[in-house]
Amino acid sequence: MATVEELKLRIRELENELIKCKQKQCAVEDALQRPKIDIMSAEVVDSNPYSRLMALKRMGIVDDYEKIRTFTVAVVGVGGVGSVTAEMLTRCGIGKLLLFDYDKVELANMNRLFFQPHQAGLSKVEAAEHTLRNINPDVSFETHNYNITTMENFTHFMDRISHGGLEEGKPVDLVLSCVDNFEARMAINTACNELGQIWVESGVSENAVSGHIQLINPGETACFACAPPLVVAANIDEKTLKREGVCAASLPTTMGVVAGILVQNVLKYLLKFGTVSYYLGYNAMQDFFPTMAMKANPQCNDRYCRKQQEEYKKKVAEQPKVEVVKVEEEVVHEDNEWGIELVSEVTEAELQAATGTVPDLPEGITVAYTIPAEVKESGETVEETEQSLEDLMAQMRKL
Amino acid sequence: MATVEELKLRIRELENELIKCKQKQCAVEDALQRPKIDIMSAEVVDSNPYSRLMALKRMGIVDDYEKIRTFTVAVVGVGGVGSVTAEMLTRCGIGKLLLFDYDKVELANMNRLFFQPHQAGLSKVEAAEHTLRNINPDVSFETHNYNITTMENFTHFMDRISHGGLEEGKPVDLVLSCVDNFEARMAINTACNELGQIWVESGVSENAVSGHIQLINPGETACFACAPPLVVAANIDEKTLKREGVCAASLPTTMGVVAGILVQNVLKYLLKFGTVSYYLGYNAMQDFFPTMAMKANPQCNDRYCRKQQEEYKKKVAEQPKVEVVKVEEEVVHEDNEWGIELVSEVTEAELQAATGTVPDLPEGITVAYTIPAEVKESGETVEETEQSLEDLMAQMRKL
Repeated sequence: MATVEELKLRIRELENELIKCKQKQCAVEDALQRPKIDIMSAEVVDSNPYSRLMALKRMGIVDDYEKIRTFTVAVVGVGGVGSVTAEMLTRCGIGKLLLFDYDKVELANMNRLFFQPHQAGLSKVEAAEHTLRNINPDVSFETHNYNITTMENFTHFMDRISHGGLEEGKPVDLVLSCVDNFEARMAINTACNELGQIWVESGVSENAVSGHIQLINPGETACFACAPPLVVAANIDEKTLKREGVCAASLPTTMGVVAGILVQNVLKYLLKFGTVSYYLGYNAMQDFFPTMAMKANPQCNDRYCRKQQEEYKKKVAEQPKVEVVKVEEEVVHEDNEWGIELVSEVTEAELQAATGTVPDLPEGITVAYTIPAEVKESGETVEETEQSLEDLMAQMRKL
Repeated sequence: MATVEELKLRIRELENELIKCKQKQCAVEDALQRPKIDIMSAEVVDSNPYSRLMALKRMGIVDDYEKIRTFTVAVVGVGGVGSVTAEMLTRCGIGKLLLFDYDKVELANMNRLFFQPHQAGLSKVEAAEHTLRNINPDVSFETHNYNITTMENFTHFMDRISHGGLEEGKPVDLVLSCVDNFEARMAINTACNELGQIWVESGVSENAVSGHIQLINPGETACFACAPPLVVAANIDEKTLKREGVCAASLPTTMGVVAGILVQNVLKYLLKFGTVSYYLGYNAMQDFFPTMAMKANPQCNDRYCRKQQEEYKKKVAEQPKVEVVKVEEEVVHEDNEWGIELVSEVTEAELQAATGTVPDLPEGITVAYTIPAEVKESGETVEETEQSLEDLMAQMRKL
């Protein structure tokens, strides 16, 4: 039988082992965090997570990189594009991120970047927030685990877009649509038209080999209801896309490129450098990247879009005209407070026609859905045109 | 004083607590792993990590996606571009990855994707392998924590490129250069010329706003020693790039886009779909993506490059000619066993001139280093030209 001394020795051993085990656990948990950093420094030391970003100032690219910390961006959809988008913004040191998604992480998502197998079963916003906080504890996060398209959630979504800024009560600076369905895109469009909120739409085709980003400034550019949504032509047999019951393909490459060009344009817009693209497509089969821009449609079905167009016209009219010989060209740039360049334009006449037929788009860009032949062939009046757009939208909702 | 019974009770308590602590640790470690998967399935269930990739077959994009598991890719440089490249290939289910790097993870790397703050201090290849294994345990990994440019390591590197395939003894299928300096690129170039190994070079500018990928097939295309390396024109004041003692800027966006277009072209090349780009640039300021192709330089300084050119010529001559009216155009495509399309070509005459002057490149592409004015002005013979290329290379090495 063991003596009291032997028992006491065993207790000391066990206590030491337990302390070690707990220390190891704490170390794992602590190691996941870096301390917060109050002021972004440009100091070139290995321990400074911002040195390579602050170097953009010395390189003459960005005037005031620190300003990134004052901005709030809402990311709607935290899937293949949205999660990488959120990670890029987090690593760039954005002030605040609002994340919206109602999906759970699945092993079936592991062919795209960001989520890890051990997160399967967690809600995407919860898993994303945990990873992103560990990457950069200087960013503020606000997550909403719900579907924005239900009436109640939509109201809450509108409220957070208009009041969820870094300074509570202020609107967010930008909304990024990284969703994978038409209904959610239309919900974001409706909210942003009503709020006059600038947003960027993104998308990847079901065959995984093309994608695009599109900046929408209510009143200035075509909104999502102004014209059929634009996609990049895949140059492959379209019939393969429409087969029923086929799960969509996806690739980490295409989604990484789309997230990359999306966040790059967000940085250019927020930090005022380079030229922000209105529409940038990516055709992975040919490595072709078409660009374009489309004006708002005065016959848009969304009344808030039409209202924003009136306000935009007034604002442009009030701006002082710069007297230059080539006045017309100047006006195009004057319109535009973001330094965004119109690459190619679809005229208003073309857009009106587009509600019945396909607009004249640059090479490589096409509409996401085509209009039934019978509508195309009928003689068109404005009323019929509006009707056909409604039909089209109804059709698209069904898809 | 405690009784024997009390001591025994304390021992049981401590033992239970220790078991719980250890179980918690194991659970954390186990959760990081998913079981291996023997056969890639197209089944559309949430638990299948390959369903969205196998869907590429049903979408008509890829004929035989499972073939991805038979390929080995070497990634040299596991930094901002290389780590994301390795992650994309891992998530796509590549057969085997060889990773080469000699750097440690630092907090200063956190402005790019992939590494996490808790990995600071670990070697990049060790940290990367751990993360990648957790993401996809079906991939084989081989890591080398060394600098490939030292004589001894270079010999070992050559050996692993030529024998480190999935089936030991076979060469790798592709080498990807994701390094950040000229010396390492030249080492890869030298190895691949000698081995006749196809490789893809990638690069991001020091100001973080441009990048490129370039496919190099020894004997067919210009190698890294054939002509000054090509970069995408930044369209900003070049003087800001050359300031001394300035740390390079970097962005997760630019590096994500470059990794994305790199791996997309790797997938197209390995799985035979779409058109593989010889050279694809990315100008982030203007969202401009120039493409081009350059033939090998018969006066290349690398004797293995010249040898590969002879062999390539022989191979092309041996191929049966297809009789078509436009014979010349046909020959260009016939040359080419990878279905790669020449977008625009620099002629051999231009290339010879390029050793002394800048070749006539497509809009948006420029050489990484310009040739001193005095060399340009001298009357050139073949000897002088070769000399000036050597001078240039020596200069570049110093940079």
